[in-house]
Amino acid sequence: MSAASTLGRGTAADIGAFVPGPPVTQEPTAAGPLNGLTFAVKDLIDLAGHITGGGNPDWLRTHAPAVRSAPAVEQLLAAGATLRGKTVTDELAFSLEGVNAHYGTPMNPCCPDRIPGGSSSGSACAVAAGVVDFALGTDTGGSVRVPASFCGLFGFRPTHNAISLAGVVPFAPSYDTIGWFARDIATLAAVGDVLLPQAAPARVNRLVAIRDAFALADARIAAMLHDACLKLGVRDEIDIFDGRPDDWRECYRVLQGAEIWRELGPWITATKPAFGDNIAPRFADTADITEADVAHWGPLRGAFASRVRAALADGTGLVIPTAPSIALHKAAGGEEIGAFYQRALALTSIAGHTGQPQISLPAGRIDGCPVGLSIIAAAGCDRSLLDGARDWSLQLTTKTAT
Amino acid sequence: MSAASTLGRGTAADIGAFVPGPPVTQEPTAAGPLNGLTFAVKDLIDLAGHITGGGNPDWLRTHAPAVRSAPAVEQLLAAGATLRGKTVTDELAFSLEGVNAHYGTPMNPCCPDRIPGGSSSGSACAVAAGVVDFALGTDTGGSVRVPASFCGLFGFRPTHNAISLAGVVPFAPSYDTIGWFARDIATLAAVGDVLLPQAAPARVNRLVAIRDAFALADARIAAMLHDACLKLGVRDEIDIFDGRPDDWRECYRVLQGAEIWRELGPWITATKPAFGDNIAPRFADTADITEADVAHWGPLRGAFASRVRAALADGTGLVIPTAPSIALHKAAGGEEIGAFYQRALALTSIAGHTGQPQISLPAGRIDGCPVGLSIIAAAGCDRSLLDGARDWSLQLTTKTAT
Repeated sequence: MSAASTLGRGTAADIGAFVPGPPVTQEPTAAGPLNGLTFAVKDLIDLAGHITGGGNPDWLRTHAPAVRSAPAVEQLLAAGATLRGKTVTDELAFSLEGVNAHYGTPMNPCCPDRIPGGSSSGSACAVAAGVVDFALGTDTGGSVRVPASFCGLFGFRPTHNAISLAGVVPFAPSYDTIGWFARDIATLAAVGDVLLPQAAPARVNRLVAIRDAFALADARIAAMLHDACLKLGVRDEIDIFDGRPDDWRECYRVLQGAEIWRELGPWITATKPAFGDNIAPRFADTADITEADVAHWGPLRGAFASRVRAALADGTGLVIPTAPSIALHKAAGGEEIGAFYQRALALTSIAGHTGQPQISLPAGRIDGCPVGLSIIAAAGCDRSLLDGARDWSLQLTTKTAT
Repeated sequence: MSAASTLGRGTAADIGAFVPGPPVTQEPTAAGPLNGLTFAVKDLIDLAGHITGGGNPDWLRTHAPAVRSAPAVEQLLAAGATLRGKTVTDELAFSLEGVNAHYGTPMNPCCPDRIPGGSSSGSACAVAAGVVDFALGTDTGGSVRVPASFCGLFGFRPTHNAISLAGVVPFAPSYDTIGWFARDIATLAAVGDVLLPQAAPARVNRLVAIRDAFALADARIAAMLHDACLKLGVRDEIDIFDGRPDDWRECYRVLQGAEIWRELGPWITATKPAFGDNIAPRFADTADITEADVAHWGPLRGAFASRVRAALADGTGLVIPTAPSIALHKAAGGEEIGAFYQRALALTSIAGHTGQPQISLPAGRIDGCPVGLSIIAAAGCDRSLLDGARDWSLQLTTKTAT
């Protein structure tokens, strides 16, 4: 596989991708298929002997060094990869923006005046800048998928529970996953080959576009990704939201929020941490979610999941825009950010509510900024999705639609 | 549907199925498909205005009345069903036996000198005795499936997260489900029709027996269920455990235990509740599970799940014994109980690790005690499983193999 970056090569310090302090490095523990590749790990994932900082100084201050590394990290080191650092995250994973009031905003090398996307911001930027070959992030509501789209990378969110979350700070456990970024599909798939469970051969043998997901994207993105669909030979379209994408987003917001408060509320109440102005109100909101809210939205999650599963039957892959827009300007106002979340979370909830794997592929640029196209497959078809993406990424880079 | 019991008719008080105190009853809130049917609810599921007792007096003492009922209960009342009571559970759902040191052991009407199975013991016994037409339980590691097998009932564990767990005491959330019991398949399916999300038509079109699951059952059970497979037209067999059923059980024990301690440890530490002698050591064991244990078994769960998903492809249903034995004698010793758990948890973990739906059907009797046969389907195929079971239950009651 080629690990050479086609992007400008920076250093982690240049772009603010790594957490403060001396770089955390570790040599491979064995030789293997990832020999010669370097990686970084989001600072929500344990590395033995280091405190997992979670993107918040009070979290760092109130936690002890990890006794052991997360199994995913151990597997990568045992496959020959070299660890080059721990990367900045949005505070405790809460945000899709990549703006951290304490540690800064890692630079999006594709468009430095725009946000990188988060919460796996440092991991995405470190890969995009060529500092490392791949990086681990976490993805609950889009925290790998969105920065992959914004930074022009391949990004992967696996089937829920396919990769152990041991050694990862919990956020909203029924949605949490470990995901990863790479600049090329070969590297992305090689990492999957190490981390993913073996599975029987299966194929994504038919791609279907979700029409009402395309309708959530900016018009120029929808048009570009429509062309991408032609290159992929997509012929069929379905609707998934039944006219109510806001319900999918609100269902996610409520159920995720209730889980967040359950996981992190006791620590927040006891520690009274200083959160950035962009994050504090989000955590405060989770404390206000009621049992009635959860009782209302819980059954709807099941209904949404059921619908997605049915659409994925018989080897179907579902095609959607990864994000509704290109990366927002750093100076974007609250209204623009709000409108982004409203659409982005509906898109990311399609795979999220039901725990399906999703891959984001770079599909072109608008105003110089990357745009990602996503394909969702049935649970457990992670390897098929990574295999299929080898062809799809070639097709996307052809000049004309076939 | 027929709600008439073929079993002896008892009362809840006679058999100790209901929690102490005046019966908790509630009229339907609307007319619907469950008109005329009565039900009971395991005392781990919230009913508005009542404290959810969790099978432990200290839990009852330290909790306030529920503000609202679990959505599943509300849906059943709105579909015309009448609530007749709250049923005894093993303490905080911890056990497959149905023995509660505080509230007694509900009587298994099929074999009163044997345990009913748990932890949804009272719900199973109330249905088996004809006190109610159906009952809700919860199933984390077999707590509906095993008592269904022991009490000669139809029992259903749905796809994980298909039915909201709002208003249910958490135990091991990544395995927890709400399930239910009925004496006939029509009632079991009617309840599913109310509680389950709508899904696209799908069919379980082929049944495959898991050979190494049959090998875990007592010889006479395996022989009886082999005949049952012939009646169902099962022609193919596969192995699933790769020679290591103990790994599947141990993986479950560790990951479940870590989640239990995380959910209930803070309350146990603060309250120091009095648990029965059969339950106290189980909770104590969960406190001793280490991060290293979780790191070891977490990735294997993904591998096991992957294997089960692959076996379920293309509309396949997997056939296994629900439990490795008939109900144990109440006087069974520790060694016999331990051997039961070792095999039972391997069997129940097949659907558990990967969140697949499973139905248990009454398949005959040995020494007068019921034996259950289970079919597992792909996630989301809950309605297909209930539909298919109408035919299967007919086939199982024919006298000779076809």
